Amino acid sequence: MIRFGVLGAGFIGTVHAKNIAANARSRVESIYDVAGEASKRLAASLGARVAVSPDEILSDERVDAVLIASSTNTHAELLRRAIAARKPVYCEKPIDLDMERVRSVVDEGCRAGVPVFMGFSRRFDANHLALREAVRGGAIGKLEMLHLTSRGPVPPPISYVRVSGGQFRDQTIHFFDLAAWISGEDPVEVFAAGAALVDPAIGEAGDIDTSMLILKLPSGALCHLDQSRRSAYGYDERIEAFGSQGMVESQRKRTRDVSLSTGKHIVLDGLHPGWFERLEPSFARSLDAFLDSLERGISPSPSLVDGLRAQQVAEAALESLRTNRPVKVDTWRP
Amino acid sequence: MIRFGVLGAGFIGTVHAKNIAANARSRVESIYDVAGEASKRLAASLGARVAVSPDEILSDERVDAVLIASSTNTHAELLRRAIAARKPVYCEKPIDLDMERVRSVVDEGCRAGVPVFMGFSRRFDANHLALREAVRGGAIGKLEMLHLTSRGPVPPPISYVRVSGGQFRDQTIHFFDLAAWISGEDPVEVFAAGAALVDPAIGEAGDIDTSMLILKLPSGALCHLDQSRRSAYGYDERIEAFGSQGMVESQRKRTRDVSLSTGKHIVLDGLHPGWFERLEPSFARSLDAFLDSLERGISPSPSLVDGLRAQQVAEAALESLRTNRPVKVDTWRP
Amino acid sequence: MIRFGVLGAGFIGTVHAKNIAANARSRVESIYDVAGEASKRLAASLGARVAVSPDEILSDERVDAVLIASSTNTHAELLRRAIAARKPVYCEKPIDLDMERVRSVVDEGCRAGVPVFMGFSRRFDANHLALREAVRGGAIGKLEMLHLTSRGPVPPPISYVRVSGGQFRDQTIHFFDLAAWISGEDPVEVFAAGAALVDPAIGEAGDIDTSMLILKLPSGALCHLDQSRRSAYGYDERIEAFGSQGMVESQRKRTRDVSLSTGKHIVLDGLHPGWFERLEPSFARSLDAFLDSLERGISPSPSLVDGLRAQQVAEAALESLRTNRPVKVDTWRP
Amino acid sequence: MIRFGVLGAGFIGTVHAKNIAANARSRVESIYDVAGEASKRLAASLGARVAVSPDEILSDERVDAVLIASSTNTHAELLRRAIAARKPVYCEKPIDLDMERVRSVVDEGCRAGVPVFMGFSRRFDANHLALREAVRGGAIGKLEMLHLTSRGPVPPPISYVRVSGGQFRDQTIHFFDLAAWISGEDPVEVFAAGAALVDPAIGEAGDIDTSMLILKLPSGALCHLDQSRRSAYGYDERIEAFGSQGMVESQRKRTRDVSLSTGKHIVLDGLHPGWFERLEPSFARSLDAFLDSLERGISPSPSLVDGLRAQQVAEAALESLRTNRPVKVDTWRP
Repeated sequence: MIRFGVLGAGFIGTVHAKNIAANARSRVESIYDVAGEASKRLAASLGARVAVSPDEILSDERVDAVLIASSTNTHAELLRRAIAARKPVYCEKPIDLDMERVRSVVDEGCRAGVPVFMGFSRRFDANHLALREAVRGGAIGKLEMLHLTSRGPVPPPISYVRVSGGQFRDQTIHFFDLAAWISGEDPVEVFAAGAALVDPAIGEAGDIDTSMLILKLPSGALCHLDQSRRSAYGYDERIEAFGSQGMVESQRKRTRDVSLSTGKHIVLDGLHPGWFERLEPSFARSLDAFLDSLERGISPSPSLVDGLRAQQVAEAALESLRTNRPVKVDTWRP
Repeated sequence: MIRFGVLGAGFIGTVHAKNIAANARSRVESIYDVAGEASKRLAASLGARVAVSPDEILSDERVDAVLIASSTNTHAELLRRAIAARKPVYCEKPIDLDMERVRSVVDEGCRAGVPVFMGFSRRFDANHLALREAVRGGAIGKLEMLHLTSRGPVPPPISYVRVSGGQFRDQTIHFFDLAAWISGEDPVEVFAAGAALVDPAIGEAGDIDTSMLILKLPSGALCHLDQSRRSAYGYDERIEAFGSQGMVESQRKRTRDVSLSTGKHIVLDGLHPGWFERLEPSFARSLDAFLDSLERGISPSPSLVDGLRAQQVAEAALESLRTNRPVKVDTWRP
Repeated sequence: MIRFGVLGAGFIGTVHAKNIAANARSRVESIYDVAGEASKRLAASLGARVAVSPDEILSDERVDAVLIASSTNTHAELLRRAIAARKPVYCEKPIDLDMERVRSVVDEGCRAGVPVFMGFSRRFDANHLALREAVRGGAIGKLEMLHLTSRGPVPPPISYVRVSGGQFRDQTIHFFDLAAWISGEDPVEVFAAGAALVDPAIGEAGDIDTSMLILKLPSGALCHLDQSRRSAYGYDERIEAFGSQGMVESQRKRTRDVSLSTGKHIVLDGLHPGWFERLEPSFARSLDAFLDSLERGISPSPSLVDGLRAQQVAEAALESLRTNRPVKVDTWRP
Repeated sequence: MIRFGVLGAGFIGTVHAKNIAANARSRVESIYDVAGEASKRLAASLGARVAVSPDEILSDERVDAVLIASSTNTHAELLRRAIAARKPVYCEKPIDLDMERVRSVVDEGCRAGVPVFMGFSRRFDANHLALREAVRGGAIGKLEMLHLTSRGPVPPPISYVRVSGGQFRDQTIHFFDLAAWISGEDPVEVFAAGAALVDPAIGEAGDIDTSMLILKLPSGALCHLDQSRRSAYGYDERIEAFGSQGMVESQRKRTRDVSLSTGKHIVLDGLHPGWFERLEPSFARSLDAFLDSLERGISPSPSLVDGLRAQQVAEAALESLRTNRPVKVDTWRP
């Protein structure tokens, strides 16, 4: 039974905490959130204690591992302290918005050898997993083109946009990770185009809401990503991999399998209302993967370096967007 | 170049005549129709002659084969005369509504050895052909259940209903033929249920417009057919075969491959407006099969006996509908 | 918090007990099973007590409701005792294999006014629910034809076949319930055809494994059911409703949404390995419906009369299979 | 009846000539091809005359319109002469590989007012047409992202690669045209990435076989194109348009609608073996559009300027590929 200290009791922290409580191999020992009320309510419902500070959790011998789901600007510092306290970490992305701090934390984590699992939970989506198995197992031969799509459903509030780091570091980062995970390659160069087509206020906040990118992989394979912050037809996430011997698709996932034929049309049930409904099962599987790695004493995957990697692509994408030219991806590794 | 005499210049006669004219291996030599105007117009457009009687065509040495597409009540007599004149025949179904006459014509045709091809053109639909190949090639193991669906799009006029012989002999007969052709078995017993749910006038004319049947095949396999004279969503024809090792479906055929996602739904293009639009390509392929059999000197298929067979099932179905009990299928063969 | 006494800790009893434990509105108070070991293990894992007899549970004031998931031959007696003890019941189907006893128990239950919920959990499948809403909401106009398919995946052991009451009372009964629930009509007449095509041993045990039925509904609508005890491609359950204004389908449900295109084919992920994997989410929703009815003090649905109704159709189907003629459905109601 | 002179009796010239002959509104008057044998055979089969030179056709009063389907390097000169002879032209793409000559011919054609129809036949594909109608009719709101995919099936011979002008001017040009036709916008900037991943010999010939492009449209909308010269699963052509209110797709078109379920998979019939089989019906519809424009005296569409437009994008794409930076599209118009 792995006992978790939970840092952050917002939306995603609550999702994780409930999964930890529901999993036969883990439980929530204590919870800290800057909003005391949030941690109290969550702790009460899960039979956990409320901590008055992150340090109370990090120094607690009854805590085997910590979950970091606090606001982005606190990730790096909490990671650093957890590593110092030698507590294994399940950390929500991103590591930090400042690449200097990212590199420094990754460096510490790797040198300390404390297990850090990055919450790229999409890797645990059943459809995406099957696609990757097909690609890596040779079902489509040599990979030549990869497409990743992520759209909607509604733009985040401008207050969130301002602190999110922008579309690439907030939304696309998951797909930078997936692209590397599926292809087994780190992109060498990125070209990005984007604009605030959905909401001018996003543009005024210095961000974009609609974008397309082309990534060049070392093997010569090309990767395309498109994303929008808004989709009028539910949350749409798809992946397509094309290779020398075929194509495999992780197709759109409909909410139900019902078809109505009337007049000239066949009407199917559409997509999930939001990214969470679409991806919900992957969070529990993601936790399982972290528990597996702890129980077996193997390196967690996605790792801290995977977090670094995805952010390096995001930085290059941002630079490309600013300069309107292809940008090489930083290849620094600890 | 096989020269055809065409008997009947109505809707389906015109379809056949145009296909004969467009086929590099055949042409229309002459045309007869009780409505002189119809034959004149058609003949003019195809560069063919107009005959003043069927016998002018049947005795014409420039005619190599005849196509019978006149009204149902004339089929038997024209078949008989064509057989006597030793002209190979492409004959629209059914042979006749009276089973005595059917047996007698089939007997004559078989004894004379004149090639007669029954116009069960659905056998030449690309989807149905692929399904049959899968079934007969063992892809689903031993056949255990078979489903055939035929719906719509709109009921024929009551005047047609009165002379059509009823839904089983007019609409379902194609699917009695397909069931035998796919399974390679002749049904031994039929149970039929049906009613005039679409239009009471059809009921008053002594017919039904909605029906379901269960056929028992000698191997023990079961076959289900459903049909309606009206479908609010276009013409819907499907076949499904279930066997010990799998299932194969000849699925619905959409007019286009366009998908519109808006709000909670995905809207696809629907089915063809009518049975003809759905099945049009199978008429030209059907003609090709007839020409092949003539050129190679092999027995045509579907044959006159196939026409008999399908009608024997239809008769049993009618009897079952009247008596509300399962009825054995007549097994008489010439 | 509704406290359950669980009678029967076999496969399905365990499924229900775990759902009761996981539901925030209910918990398992005590468990009884003839196999003491089974109840001990289950009770331990759920923090419940082990009862030494059904009566210990039925007379326990700490038990608010009982779940009957014991062997079929004990259902009627346990129902009777639970009704006498005025404990609301969630009862697995069927009520009993003997129709006299069924009628007698239903009569007692209805007169006593004790809530009894019949475990027709397929009613809570999201796809089937949406189909029914479409039908009842008028999306397809007047219902004219209904198809229900249930296949596989593997035949039960012969020992189970012998006590199951046969394919109609064991497998098809769910679909007799669905047909009435979707159409809002009670079938008036049934014709059944069937055989042991999958396994001769099933035939020797007096049962069938492959069957087709036609049900006539009072409105004139026709209903077809087909079922097989074995499917080589996973568990296949589908419903199709055809009406005057369109068609709605509860389509097959694939395990994943992955598509591999190679050579001449597109290969999709197939169906679930078994009926349980396909229908698992409907059990928790079924429990929710029972809890709702208890909390709101409304009659449970599916009800004891629904259980009677489905069995009356099954009896007529059996009689039809024996006599090879259509059989009227008994209409007795308490 | 519009009488055509056909210039070029190769593969695509033959396709067009047969469509002209089969169309009730047109016929082939005469044919010229540098390979005399080709024109003789084709002329004989269509009952047309053989011309000894292009000029014999262009000066023939019995010729109402000309079809240019000769080799690419002759298009510009034949166009110029046909314009001078005031014969309406149906011209295969591209106009020429040299942009100076393209501009000069377009200029002449526009000033002369002779109708020139560019053979962008994909515009007449039923699926693509329906997608465009949806986009232009407002079904998806304001267009924000557009994807066009074209893959395979097999690379052309190196001899063809050498004279083709390269992947962008030979294959992608159709999709540059479609992008403008669907969006109603001319791209302002192009970024292209590509490599010879399929066949090194294509790279040695100075061309690429796999590429991705991002086009920026004046409205801010982004357009992505991907193409490969080889596809292991048949010819794959798709379009997807995403807008503020939804998404519309011109999906892949399967050869048949047959589905085989066995074991863990559902196997569908795949795509067409080649682009021609996929697009064949659009050639006849393309001819109809040309005939319509002539009969009604309206400007043909796609026009000579559309031909120019698509090539301007191709030139920018080539320049982008060479320089690895985004390149502005030339906006010269006659």
